[in-house]
Amino acid sequence: MTTPNAGLAINADRLWQTVERSAEIGVGRPGGLARLALTNDDRQMRDEFRDWCTSGGLTVSVDAVGNMFARRVGRDNVSPPVVMGSHLDTQFNGGRYDGVVGVLAALEVMRTLNDAGLQTVRPLEIAMWTNEEGARFSPPMIGSAAFAGVHSTEWVHARRADDGAAFGEELQRIEYLGSRDVGGRAFDSYFELHIEQGPELDARRIPVGVVTHGYDVHGFIVDVVGETAHTGPWPMDRRKNALVAGALLSVAINDIGWRHHPTGGKATAARLVAWPNKPGILSDRAQFTGDVRHADPATAAAMRAEFMDAVSAAADRSRCEIRVADEWHWGADIFDQTMVALVRDTARQLNIPSFDLPSQAGHDAYHIAGIAPTAMIFTPCRDGITHNNNEFASRDDTAPGVNVLLHAVLARANRA
Amino acid sequence: MTTPNAGLAINADRLWQTVERSAEIGVGRPGGLARLALTNDDRQMRDEFRDWCTSGGLTVSVDAVGNMFARRVGRDNVSPPVVMGSHLDTQFNGGRYDGVVGVLAALEVMRTLNDAGLQTVRPLEIAMWTNEEGARFSPPMIGSAAFAGVHSTEWVHARRADDGAAFGEELQRIEYLGSRDVGGRAFDSYFELHIEQGPELDARRIPVGVVTHGYDVHGFIVDVVGETAHTGPWPMDRRKNALVAGALLSVAINDIGWRHHPTGGKATAARLVAWPNKPGILSDRAQFTGDVRHADPATAAAMRAEFMDAVSAAADRSRCEIRVADEWHWGADIFDQTMVALVRDTARQLNIPSFDLPSQAGHDAYHIAGIAPTAMIFTPCRDGITHNNNEFASRDDTAPGVNVLLHAVLARANRA
Repeated sequence: MTTPNAGLAINADRLWQTVERSAEIGVGRPGGLARLALTNDDRQMRDEFRDWCTSGGLTVSVDAVGNMFARRVGRDNVSPPVVMGSHLDTQFNGGRYDGVVGVLAALEVMRTLNDAGLQTVRPLEIAMWTNEEGARFSPPMIGSAAFAGVHSTEWVHARRADDGAAFGEELQRIEYLGSRDVGGRAFDSYFELHIEQGPELDARRIPVGVVTHGYDVHGFIVDVVGETAHTGPWPMDRRKNALVAGALLSVAINDIGWRHHPTGGKATAARLVAWPNKPGILSDRAQFTGDVRHADPATAAAMRAEFMDAVSAAADRSRCEIRVADEWHWGADIFDQTMVALVRDTARQLNIPSFDLPSQAGHDAYHIAGIAPTAMIFTPCRDGITHNNNEFASRDDTAPGVNVLLHAVLARANRA
Repeated sequence: MTTPNAGLAINADRLWQTVERSAEIGVGRPGGLARLALTNDDRQMRDEFRDWCTSGGLTVSVDAVGNMFARRVGRDNVSPPVVMGSHLDTQFNGGRYDGVVGVLAALEVMRTLNDAGLQTVRPLEIAMWTNEEGARFSPPMIGSAAFAGVHSTEWVHARRADDGAAFGEELQRIEYLGSRDVGGRAFDSYFELHIEQGPELDARRIPVGVVTHGYDVHGFIVDVVGETAHTGPWPMDRRKNALVAGALLSVAINDIGWRHHPTGGKATAARLVAWPNKPGILSDRAQFTGDVRHADPATAAAMRAEFMDAVSAAADRSRCEIRVADEWHWGADIFDQTMVALVRDTARQLNIPSFDLPSQAGHDAYHIAGIAPTAMIFTPCRDGITHNNNEFASRDDTAPGVNVLLHAVLARANRA
């Protein structure tokens, strides 16, 4: 393989100025962002992003779940586009880089091609997916999932935030209820650049991670039904405290994570809501959300089985009814190995150090991998800290990965 | 001791019609009530109660935390009043009888005296305390506590519900921000009739419980500080998941309850709130509320110590910072033994079967016991079920206790 235009490189300063402008919108805790999906801050960020795209000669369209597409024409506009994407929303205590760097790296690729006056054979697009984080509307990755046909548009519109707002109404309110159908069209391929959200690249001082596969993830939503009673007189052996059942699940899943920690396993108690959850009364409803993750699918399946045993044990111990209301599974071998090899080879051609690693987090790329050849490029983040206002990535650590993105996209878009 | 007017008896049908009218206001789950403090339902109930009182010739006043007092003049109106009271608010999934029966029994005593044309020496009052349940505003028993000087009026007004409303504003909104100072005046004595909220009277088919003392209760609010991070890549040994810390406390306190179950101990995980408590992110804040209870103060103190050990253990295991932010203690020997003997002797004089028992729940009487000689009378509730829409008390099981209240109040109000 050769890399034409090998001298072509992105403008790292311009990229970083753009990242820093994004960091002014939806400011959260010191250094961080709280730019939740479909809020006024999200709208402001989308407006800014659209302006940047149109200033760069891109044509912006929006679909009916708020996904934004910024298209750069090629010489052959009948062929499906080569797409780069990620998200601009953040967690409640989010950082400045998670998702954001992927979208703005894609924009920088477009700007670099504009500066060089290069037109690709196939058209290029940036995809900005709605509500990747799931911080305001559950589930996460809802925009890319809908694009990939996992959810219907109507179902997405009906999702409600904890603050009571419906997804469809909020989309309309911020004026990003677009006219395009959701999905139903082909991508030539999809690239997602993302901060690693793990410590490996930073620890080894290597700027590019070639993402070979996902961690195997099993997630659960568990519903508990108990009985209200007075917290005082009601004897222990007659209690059915739903909060206790949910707490048992939270502790159990954390213990499962520790059991598999020596081989890199993780398990998380992410969310527990009880009702009425008040002094003086035992709760009769609870809902728990958690997941287990492992690089090895067989071990992940074993962790899942351990959690199911914990569900039975919690039901016995709390005397509550417990039901796994929803379960999901991601990861494993979802990426296209030709695309993965293209990323690896491009880094080598550019003399940029890289190594192969799996993704431990979920990404929009997981859903898009179901409908198009997909690869991910990881860039370093300090100490692996993420979903936290101390998340940090530097311009110089990020630029090499964006150059790999640029040249991999060029290779793909110009291939015979 | 003799009981003058021994033939005098309450009108059980009238009492029960009044209880049933109350059960139409703030209807909750089938058979139950959800009449939370300072809601429109609370206002409607208060309006009805005020009308009943004024129709009976009582003078109603309201203090600055919404406590209502309905006064019946005596022959000596310089002496402090003999007071009967309880509350009309309920839990989210409350019953029709908890608190309500105590207030309406007091009203029935007044109506019975009116019918008989009897004037007492000392004046009588009904006290209707605001927000006993603590279901909407924390802490519970806030109105009686403020009257007893435990909280300032300003502090009470500043309490906020989970729905964001301030206590003082809600009080004003429902027009029960009264002009009277809170507390600062003497009661001759205080009687509170209440359903037992335990199974003893019902199981033994005995209509009156003479409440000798409270269960010893230690309650806690515990604050947890952890660190947000991604639920995926972040290694188990670097996590500080505040939800896990709160869950460990919830499980531990429940285990403490089970350890002391053979001797009648109880311990409760009542409330756990985590933040952000969302998929994809570890929570960095949590707050836990719970309590331990035992009839024996030394055992209750041991249970408290076990919980403090559990706090340390949870901090170690979760790597979070945990701090007991608030702690309270009720119960033990708070009631006036002369008053308790008066209740016991009155039942005997009336040939009403009774036995001595402790109160396991907290009551307004606990606070009033700090400023006036206080006693409680328990009446049966089916199977001890309470704070639940299946709470049930019958007219015939309740009437004997109300007659004990009538005659004990008369004895106290007419004593030399």
